[in-house]
Amino acid sequence: MSDLLNKKCVPCEGGILPFDISEIHKYQKKVDGWDVKKNTKEIYFLEKNFIFKNFVNSQNFINKVGEISENENHHPDISFGWGYAKIIITTHAIEGLSENDFILAAKIDQIFNV
Amino acid sequence: MSDLLNKKCVPCEGGILPFDISEIHKYQKKVDGWDVKKNTKEIYFLEKNFIFKNFVNSQNFINKVGEISENENHHPDISFGWGYAKIIITTHAIEGLSENDFILAAKIDQIFNV
Repeated sequence: MSDLLNKKCVPCEGGILPFDISEIHKYQKKVDGWDVKKNTKEIYFLEKNFIFKNFVNSQNFINKVGEISENENHHPDISFGWGYAKIIITTHAIEGLSENDFILAAKIDQIFNV
Repeated sequence: MSDLLNKKCVPCEGGILPFDISEIHKYQKKVDGWDVKKNTKEIYFLEKNFIFKNFVNSQNFINKVGEISENENHHPDISFGWGYAKIIITTHAIEGLSENDFILAAKIDQIFNV
């Protein structure tokens, strides 16, 4: 089990540096199947696609994701519809990735694998 | 009140033509603030952005959208996060817009305006 599951997102109002690529790769190994991508502003984010058998199952999943993100006070961008969901995570305040993002990813994986 | 609110989406497995642009414009007048756009495959869809004051309000809204779409058995593509939601509606089976799409749009507007 990832040690990230025992951690909790800490408030981040900026003022810290985002992870560099070596830190990102170190943390990427702790989560399952999350891609690291850069947006048009060169800001790193995590992305993962999930498949479901219908709309209701997609919606039940993203509701659980919503509960986790409220508990962590760290909110992803979510796209979903019939049979799919896509989760994008980044730390807007620092324009990049932080430990918080990987904590959220690990906790989302945990509910998907139940 | 739009007459679309009294209608119900009917199952569409294809075999009918999508609306042409004049039919689209006629129906667009019956809904509030939905943009008509074309995707990269030249397929028309409806799109509308909604603003909220936090994550929970966004999520409550998209849950109501989900209930409606299950009732209508016509499902949009939904993106949401902290303070926003974007709804995209099209009829995949005919690769374009049909009355069903505008019925769903009208019913989504009704829950947002409550």
